[in-house]
Amino acid sequence: MRLRNKPGAMATIENSPQYILTDGSEWRGKWHERFEKQQPLHIEVGSGKGQFIVGMAKANPTINYIAIELQTNAIISILEKQLLEPLPNLQLLLVNGADLDDYFAEGEVDQIYLNFSDPWPKTRHEKRRLTHPNFLAIYEKIAKSEAELHFKTDNRGLFEYSLASLSQYGMLLQEVWLDLHASDFEDNVMTEYEEKFSQKGHPIYRLEAHFVTKK
Amino acid sequence: MRLRNKPGAMATIENSPQYILTDGSEWRGKWHERFEKQQPLHIEVGSGKGQFIVGMAKANPTINYIAIELQTNAIISILEKQLLEPLPNLQLLLVNGADLDDYFAEGEVDQIYLNFSDPWPKTRHEKRRLTHPNFLAIYEKIAKSEAELHFKTDNRGLFEYSLASLSQYGMLLQEVWLDLHASDFEDNVMTEYEEKFSQKGHPIYRLEAHFVTKK
Repeated sequence: MRLRNKPGAMATIENSPQYILTDGSEWRGKWHERFEKQQPLHIEVGSGKGQFIVGMAKANPTINYIAIELQTNAIISILEKQLLEPLPNLQLLLVNGADLDDYFAEGEVDQIYLNFSDPWPKTRHEKRRLTHPNFLAIYEKIAKSEAELHFKTDNRGLFEYSLASLSQYGMLLQEVWLDLHASDFEDNVMTEYEEKFSQKGHPIYRLEAHFVTKK
Repeated sequence: MRLRNKPGAMATIENSPQYILTDGSEWRGKWHERFEKQQPLHIEVGSGKGQFIVGMAKANPTINYIAIELQTNAIISILEKQLLEPLPNLQLLLVNGADLDDYFAEGEVDQIYLNFSDPWPKTRHEKRRLTHPNFLAIYEKIAKSEAELHFKTDNRGLFEYSLASLSQYGMLLQEVWLDLHASDFEDNVMTEYEEKFSQKGHPIYRLEAHFVTKK
């Protein structure tokens, strides 16, 4: 079914095991072996077509990145970029974010990015939001104790929900931006959605949070 | 000096000890004696001309309110309203918010409101912001353990600062609004500033937080 819109996507994915996996469990605890260099590991949960993570991987060669995305039709775009211009510090993982602890060992991840996640506005879908406490518990498990969660969105409802959800989970908000593009925040790498919605004049919300006090 | 703009203000204040005090320390721990009824005590730190707290006192006769304001020229406007149409559940206190623990006993206050507080945007004035940890420590001291802090502002920088400051102090964000007037929040009593700035199209930010987990 996933292949309906992109014929051949699954074949391309299966032919590129050096860049993309559909089951990462065998690399659990040893992701660094899939990269050229042993360096900090940052993951993005829900990478979409990958503009953000490809931009980050290019800008930060001393960090290893894993793009995690559930949709074949989205992650194939990242793979196509990777095939055209391979980045040694970028890997792709076609899996469900709800199972991240099957694919990463405790404390394996140095930083987690969530960008323009699906807002799931209906209350009955609250558990699907990537900042729901169930997801936060998974992130906490796979993240180093000093790891940070960086989240941005143009969706007001999701950001309001996330601020309260993170706080009530016991996470600490380090910094919050309520109009990122009007701020002096530097080195911002935009996602596809971010370009589109900021052009329409929507404010972009952003936060950095962590699980334990680092004072 | 305070009297320059409002001649006679201090005389009016001194002639109205039933409504306003310039030193509340003698009532520390027994504010309920100054009210007609013994009922929960809510205070607003920085009441300005009092549109919010007078509106709240009218709307909620089962709660006692104290308007705290440092500026004679502002609090005199509240006093004038009180003299015209006395509310038995409203008292005024002309003091500095930094000394609140001189005027309230530990756990005496049931709820604290901050509305459109001065943003003090310069870093060197950070300590003057009413959501600085020094102030949060004072609020925590005088508030009941289940007390809530309700804060609203149109100032983006102050709200960003406050979200991080409260979180890092260890407070829990219960709920956050990033455009209060576009939300379904009911029973909002507007301040003078709120009317002015929301008419200009500024979003109004609001949060409710508390000091300890109430789960």
